[in-house]
Amino acid sequence: MILYSYWRSTTSYRVRAALNLKGIAYEQRAVDLVAGDQRTPDYMAVNPAKGVPALELEDGTLLTQSLAILDYLDARQPEPPLLPAEPLLRARVLAVAHSIALDIHPVNNLRVLGHLMGHFDATSEDARAWMCHWMTEGLTAVEALLPTRADFAFTEAPGLADLCITAQCYNAHRWGLSLDPFPKIARVEAACLALPEIRAAAPEAQPDAP
Amino acid sequence: MILYSYWRSTTSYRVRAALNLKGIAYEQRAVDLVAGDQRTPDYMAVNPAKGVPALELEDGTLLTQSLAILDYLDARQPEPPLLPAEPLLRARVLAVAHSIALDIHPVNNLRVLGHLMGHFDATSEDARAWMCHWMTEGLTAVEALLPTRADFAFTEAPGLADLCITAQCYNAHRWGLSLDPFPKIARVEAACLALPEIRAAAPEAQPDAP
Repeated sequence: MILYSYWRSTTSYRVRAALNLKGIAYEQRAVDLVAGDQRTPDYMAVNPAKGVPALELEDGTLLTQSLAILDYLDARQPEPPLLPAEPLLRARVLAVAHSIALDIHPVNNLRVLGHLMGHFDATSEDARAWMCHWMTEGLTAVEALLPTRADFAFTEAPGLADLCITAQCYNAHRWGLSLDPFPKIARVEAACLALPEIRAAAPEAQPDAP
Repeated sequence: MILYSYWRSTTSYRVRAALNLKGIAYEQRAVDLVAGDQRTPDYMAVNPAKGVPALELEDGTLLTQSLAILDYLDARQPEPPLLPAEPLLRARVLAVAHSIALDIHPVNNLRVLGHLMGHFDATSEDARAWMCHWMTEGLTAVEALLPTRADFAFTEAPGLADLCITAQCYNAHRWGLSLDPFPKIARVEAACLALPEIRAAAPEAQPDAP
């Protein structure tokens, strides 16, 4: 498998962590989002949405959208599972994952920030404030949705909610947002980063990291 | 079941359509997003993320995030299914649904527009241009990801991708974005709106529509 990804992309981080946890071998191909690689015709043939990650299977089939890729990986290699089988618990895990994947990440995406700076004269300080605003809103909801436990979000092993939380925490640290108001989120991040499979998926561990 | 929703919310539209297609009875409780009902303490106890929809089950359990609710409904009442069983087809359906649910909808959400107007002096014309920009980007990707068929997005009956597309098309019409460049998307919308279950879920058919 070939994973098209970018070291700092939190959606790529989620997929790298899942591949590592499931022990699926993959080759990584860097798409430099800051240089604009995602807008080249070659890459748009891989992913018409001009984003990362994209996963190329052994037969050349291309999959896009990180959560769709994670769903596929869970079907292809069910152990360890990213989602519990019980429908209500599953809905709670998905609600937390989606509070990050839908309510925070897309609004803070590089392309949205670029548009904000290009069309609304936003300064880099405005961009930072924008990112922190949506992270604070979203993480407040996530903190309210998480149960009180000792380690992972909902279960004895990391799942979809844990991976989304840990990748988003990387962005929170990057932009100077304190996790002090979010002790349950901080607990999940610590539990995840104790695992070598997840540490190996972190941005700074990637071959395209500077 | 009680569905907390708003007539014009496209995420509420998706869930109403699924409930109707599956023949699940529900009572609707209006949350007026323009009046700010979602930010009242009463509603924040229902959904700490201050959004719609939320689904209250018979025993009082509260579910949030439209795609998590749809996943739960599919587990609870599998027929008709919203997602195919075959993992690769499922991944393709999810990629289209997520191109709308993640790449378009959250960026065009009312709260983001409000923030844009409150913090960046965006005019209502700027807001319209912002919405149309992200719809054009996202629908272009969706059009490229859709197969050439005669009716629904991927399958013989409407599923998750169809519901996300049809609800997003409502917003495209509302903001004056032509679907002419997107014939496959327009075909899916027409196939869906031919069904009474989906027409009954449309914004203008809701009790809180003006």
